Amino acid sequence: MTSRTATNPSTDAVALRAELRDLYDDYGADLDGGRLDVWPDYFTRDAEYHVIARESFEQGLTHATILCQGLAMIRDRATAIRDLAVHQPRTLRHFISGVRVQSVGERVEAGANFLITEALYDDEPHLLMVGEYLDELVCEAGVWKFARRVAVYDNYRIRTSLVMPV
Amino acid sequence: MTSRTATNPSTDAVALRAELRDLYDDYGADLDGGRLDVWPDYFTRDAEYHVIARESFEQGLTHATILCQGLAMIRDRATAIRDLAVHQPRTLRHFISGVRVQSVGERVEAGANFLITEALYDDEPHLLMVGEYLDELVCEAGVWKFARRVAVYDNYRIRTSLVMPV
Amino acid sequence: MTSRTATNPSTDAVALRAELRDLYDDYGADLDGGRLDVWPDYFTRDAEYHVIARESFEQGLTHATILCQGLAMIRDRATAIRDLAVHQPRTLRHFISGVRVQSVGERVEAGANFLITEALYDDEPHLLMVGEYLDELVCEAGVWKFARRVAVYDNYRIRTSLVMPV
Repeated sequence: MTSRTATNPSTDAVALRAELRDLYDDYGADLDGGRLDVWPDYFTRDAEYHVIARESFEQGLTHATILCQGLAMIRDRATAIRDLAVHQPRTLRHFISGVRVQSVGERVEAGANFLITEALYDDEPHLLMVGEYLDELVCEAGVWKFARRVAVYDNYRIRTSLVMPV
Repeated sequence: MTSRTATNPSTDAVALRAELRDLYDDYGADLDGGRLDVWPDYFTRDAEYHVIARESFEQGLTHATILCQGLAMIRDRATAIRDLAVHQPRTLRHFISGVRVQSVGERVEAGANFLITEALYDDEPHLLMVGEYLDELVCEAGVWKFARRVAVYDNYRIRTSLVMPV
Repeated sequence: MTSRTATNPSTDAVALRAELRDLYDDYGADLDGGRLDVWPDYFTRDAEYHVIARESFEQGLTHATILCQGLAMIRDRATAIRDLAVHQPRTLRHFISGVRVQSVGERVEAGANFLITEALYDDEPHLLMVGEYLDELVCEAGVWKFARRVAVYDNYRIRTSLVMPV
């Protein structure tokens, strides 16, 4: 449990959670909209971005499906995907739920559940990926940024076609 | 990205987004509950209401699955469905995520993702429809109303049984 | 419709809804995280907790899949599940949407939609359960607790493997 146990929950904690809910929703909407040019703006210069299977994550393995260390790698990935994905006949859609704040300090630790649907041009939408964000955020010039975002997915395996960030 | 780039996000913008999140949730809950009598109240007198496939929408086609122009057509549709659906042995459920505000002016442009599950009396729940609301809202006597609501669905095709609004 | 019809929605009503949204998200996150030790803390001493099929619920039947009357039964259930579930190779994930307040009084009546995904160790995530919470809450020493939580699921039938609370 997060802020719930406090008998007089701080207005700031409630406000922070609301701000992060907006941030998480913006992040998902930008990816859904294919706006990969703004995706790196969600990260700090030294940010780490991982997409990793739960099994690997829980065993402490470093075998991540996507592993970016630093903003340069994140930008490279965005560029590479944009070139690949332009004519991709599929639609992804993020559903974010359960935004939560684990701890507040120099870095805010927060998280949320994600569910991503995929619709191909000739098939019905299906669950592409389900999992949990485990994040560390810092506030830079009034804007929340991810210093570390780890997307741990519950799927046993993911399609090799996964190129879009999560 | 919406309000995220502002270094000092306006409290009003944050509050507006929270209000719309409540509105979108109310809208979905009323449809899930089968309260078609209140559904027209979410729209202005001149409102347009469309349900359309992404492919048609992106090609600028006007072939919509549902197309209501003005409140009279919206009310007619509500009445027709209520007559049809009374004994319908299925349950629909809306999941709204990613409520966002694109622009604020005389009309607020906003949107959200929707995921609708359908449960039939003899089968497990499944994804019925996934997509995105593209909306224009105005505030009438203190209540937000849709001047235009376009529900763009990602599904390749939808079942002919679709009669409920989205 | 809930607070939507008010021309000047009370700030308190808006704030209450935001608080409950946080509460519902915390509840889901604790269950997803397997923190069954804190699950009883969400309930009052005399709380009722039901998990029931929509069909049974609408017919007024008392045949519930899970039925706990009072905190002692809720605690017993948490203990029993914790013993069973320790090595369970599956991941559940709650997606809560549409938190709404039906009435405010000594007890607050509220609700929300839930969608729970299940991922097994060797299969893709799927929809395990979809439904609606129907709740009565009271505020005890500044903390919202469920005096009654009824989870009405839309599924025709649920797997006998359901042991986790909803």
